[in-house]
Amino acid sequence: MTLADIARHLNIPVRGDDAIAVRGLATLKDAGPDQVAFLANRAYLKDLASTRAAAVLLHPEHAKECPVACLETANPYVGYAQLSQLFDPMAVARLEAGVHPSAIVAEDAVLGEGVRIEANAVVGSGAMLEDRVVIGPGSIVGADSRLGEESHLHANVTLYHGVVIGKRAIMHSGCVIGADGFGFAHDGAGWHKIAQLGGVILGDDVEVGSCSSIDRGALGDTVIGNDVKIDSQVQIAHNVHIGDHTALAGCVGIAGSTRVGRHCMLGGGVGLSGHLTLCDGVQVTGMSLVTNSIHTPGVYSSGTGAMTNQQWRKNAVRFKQLDEMAKRLARLEKRQLG
Amino acid sequence: MTLADIARHLNIPVRGDDAIAVRGLATLKDAGPDQVAFLANRAYLKDLASTRAAAVLLHPEHAKECPVACLETANPYVGYAQLSQLFDPMAVARLEAGVHPSAIVAEDAVLGEGVRIEANAVVGSGAMLEDRVVIGPGSIVGADSRLGEESHLHANVTLYHGVVIGKRAIMHSGCVIGADGFGFAHDGAGWHKIAQLGGVILGDDVEVGSCSSIDRGALGDTVIGNDVKIDSQVQIAHNVHIGDHTALAGCVGIAGSTRVGRHCMLGGGVGLSGHLTLCDGVQVTGMSLVTNSIHTPGVYSSGTGAMTNQQWRKNAVRFKQLDEMAKRLARLEKRQLG
Amino acid sequence: MTLADIARHLNIPVRGDDAIAVRGLATLKDAGPDQVAFLANRAYLKDLASTRAAAVLLHPEHAKECPVACLETANPYVGYAQLSQLFDPMAVARLEAGVHPSAIVAEDAVLGEGVRIEANAVVGSGAMLEDRVVIGPGSIVGADSRLGEESHLHANVTLYHGVVIGKRAIMHSGCVIGADGFGFAHDGAGWHKIAQLGGVILGDDVEVGSCSSIDRGALGDTVIGNDVKIDSQVQIAHNVHIGDHTALAGCVGIAGSTRVGRHCMLGGGVGLSGHLTLCDGVQVTGMSLVTNSIHTPGVYSSGTGAMTNQQWRKNAVRFKQLDEMAKRLARLEKRQLG
Repeated sequence: MTLADIARHLNIPVRGDDAIAVRGLATLKDAGPDQVAFLANRAYLKDLASTRAAAVLLHPEHAKECPVACLETANPYVGYAQLSQLFDPMAVARLEAGVHPSAIVAEDAVLGEGVRIEANAVVGSGAMLEDRVVIGPGSIVGADSRLGEESHLHANVTLYHGVVIGKRAIMHSGCVIGADGFGFAHDGAGWHKIAQLGGVILGDDVEVGSCSSIDRGALGDTVIGNDVKIDSQVQIAHNVHIGDHTALAGCVGIAGSTRVGRHCMLGGGVGLSGHLTLCDGVQVTGMSLVTNSIHTPGVYSSGTGAMTNQQWRKNAVRFKQLDEMAKRLARLEKRQLG
Repeated sequence: MTLADIARHLNIPVRGDDAIAVRGLATLKDAGPDQVAFLANRAYLKDLASTRAAAVLLHPEHAKECPVACLETANPYVGYAQLSQLFDPMAVARLEAGVHPSAIVAEDAVLGEGVRIEANAVVGSGAMLEDRVVIGPGSIVGADSRLGEESHLHANVTLYHGVVIGKRAIMHSGCVIGADGFGFAHDGAGWHKIAQLGGVILGDDVEVGSCSSIDRGALGDTVIGNDVKIDSQVQIAHNVHIGDHTALAGCVGIAGSTRVGRHCMLGGGVGLSGHLTLCDGVQVTGMSLVTNSIHTPGVYSSGTGAMTNQQWRKNAVRFKQLDEMAKRLARLEKRQLG
Repeated sequence: MTLADIARHLNIPVRGDDAIAVRGLATLKDAGPDQVAFLANRAYLKDLASTRAAAVLLHPEHAKECPVACLETANPYVGYAQLSQLFDPMAVARLEAGVHPSAIVAEDAVLGEGVRIEANAVVGSGAMLEDRVVIGPGSIVGADSRLGEESHLHANVTLYHGVVIGKRAIMHSGCVIGADGFGFAHDGAGWHKIAQLGGVILGDDVEVGSCSSIDRGALGDTVIGNDVKIDSQVQIAHNVHIGDHTALAGCVGIAGSTRVGRHCMLGGGVGLSGHLTLCDGVQVTGMSLVTNSIHTPGVYSSGTGAMTNQQWRKNAVRFKQLDEMAKRLARLEKRQLG
């Protein structure tokens, strides 16, 4: 691949010798003469002058400072993302079609053109895999589940029955879609299981990280919008709705029936209680607990920052006295002003 | 199925035409004329008058306000749970017995009557599966493990060797029972692994959610009581004991050797330190950290609620000054009163 | 096995009859006359006088109080760890070599001597398994991955392509190594995936718990040092580096590009933000959030301890007023002193 090929793929101009051959991507600092680097964050501007890269993807404003060929674009980070796709060995387009002889595919499953099913995968009765779907080794597609065009289950993914996933989904290993929501009725002595009769629907361009869980609905469906990005170790309970373009970082937990808007971002380890509504454009910082609905876009937080354990012990004890302290403070004010 | 069939199953009376055919369950708002709805929460009483359901499962006190046939019961939520079971396509009773030809079952494994082993499952040497056990596709039953009657491992579940599970268990995909507890001895330079020689025992009617971990004991066993319900993404460390009828919501983590009583409820993301005792009837709200034993039933919490990041930054800084603030407050009081 | 065999294995002296046959390990309290017990914590000294064990592994200072044979060692906890290895049925050395006929092994995979590959495992093209590696049932080794001598993947482990793991690793079921890091570029309307082109490198003697995730790097590698011990349900994001001998308890989450030093210990549920540096010798207590780098060894904490929900509600409300309280306190002081 030459710089000219790359420029054509990104549909942007090259400044410099576009015949240079390129075999990969690297940071400004690490790139060798057959790699493309990028400048998407001013913090790395210091590395530009000394880069040995074949070319640098950057904003036109930095072109003059670039000692090598330039690929100029208004949003170099997006350019880097697009460029990275060219070098991904696991890209669906690069994998050969075919069903491995050890895979178990139900006779009535419907497979589109160019589908790839890898070793020891299992595709259940009535499942429908659209064109160019890839099912990784050991993955299970439950009965009557559907996967849209070019969706990719990596190894050891589990879809329960009746799960519906849109186009170009990427599901990482160990994730489980459509397990029972956590629903039980208590009779005073013990628990009665509530069968989870709803489904799970994921839109187009959804990515789910490794070992994440998205449960099926109790009656209605759990619904994940288009272009929702979900990291690893995330738990999404029954009947949750997530709006388009929202991103959930690792270890997030969302309790039942909560609705998260579009273009939201939840930091790592954030917990949302059940039956809440978060409007569009809400960001929650890492490890915050949200127990009330949020109706105004913005950034929200809870918790306290880390300090030495010695300091923390003293302050944490005072936290238990905080209401009493507030009352004593009010009393002092009253006396002084009275 | 008719309303009469349902009433017979729940052992409760129908008021109205019991010959109506029914094909499912729905909420009061969504139910069509071939679905049963339920009223278990006063918040939904507003939807009763306009429901189009075939019938409504409700407390007798609401029967007069119901525009359609009634299924009357003292605990409609439990009634709904029982009714939901009739419509669950994954109910063990609805699955056909038989061992899939691709399953690998050790010659000396003991299978009861009506056992079902699905594609690519592996059952180890000396394992014992009681009557009507179901092993989902890709699931692994370790050597010498035992599963009680009608227990159901969904797809891609892993049981290590020597795991003992009671009757009617439901184990969701990706859960792992019996992996090594986290035990290492430090010699001043590095770690020596402590082989985890204990086992894991789960009682009857236990449910474990997707991608949850229950580790085996170091010497003695990790013990989960009867009717314990465990959600997804939960971590239960070695030698933990959980009492009967306790429920653990998603993302709970319990450190080694802690004992949780009967009829406890831990909210999502709760963390319990090791070597604690929680008595019966303790509830802990979401994302609380418990570092001391609890000897009185009741509801416990820690942490702080979410606020805007702007407010939070100010308050979180003050938290680090809290002990100093408390001392200044005491000084002021002393001066004013002195 | 006799006490003499054990003493030879641990290379320590026996005091008492070394011909006694031993079949296992137990606590001082539970041990029977064919089990060895240990005293590694003064809290259990009270159980020493009444133990029925065959022998007790202990520090020489307690030998006089021991009613049975003694195995004396300066560090009885390390002795216990070493001894426990003798009784582990899953020890790699105890498992028979051989490839199960149902395993799918690529023709160009390279297998060392004594390799064991269990039922339905899948080993990809170009993978290299060094001597005595064990691949558990249903585990997947991605193309071009490498496993050092005596490494053991338990059942249903997933390694993506190009993962490099050192010697004597233990990877528990459901863990996923090398899934894509969570990287996306936003173009103002939605997300563009950044292909994760880096790798994952694990040193020697690493253990990874069940259902844990270690993501591959975006460009460079995610690097886990030697003798790093990782519990269950842990999330390690792309390009994280973890220093040698560090231990991460269950449910820890570490965001991208953070570097954790050597000999660190992170308690259960700890969260580290991205792009931080923690120096060697840092300990963080359970469920703390760390959002800034730490440059001084020591113990760090955040959060607040659990209290009754009634108390907590009052104090948590006051937390939201904390900055205002601090200002009022300062005003009072000024007036009183002014």
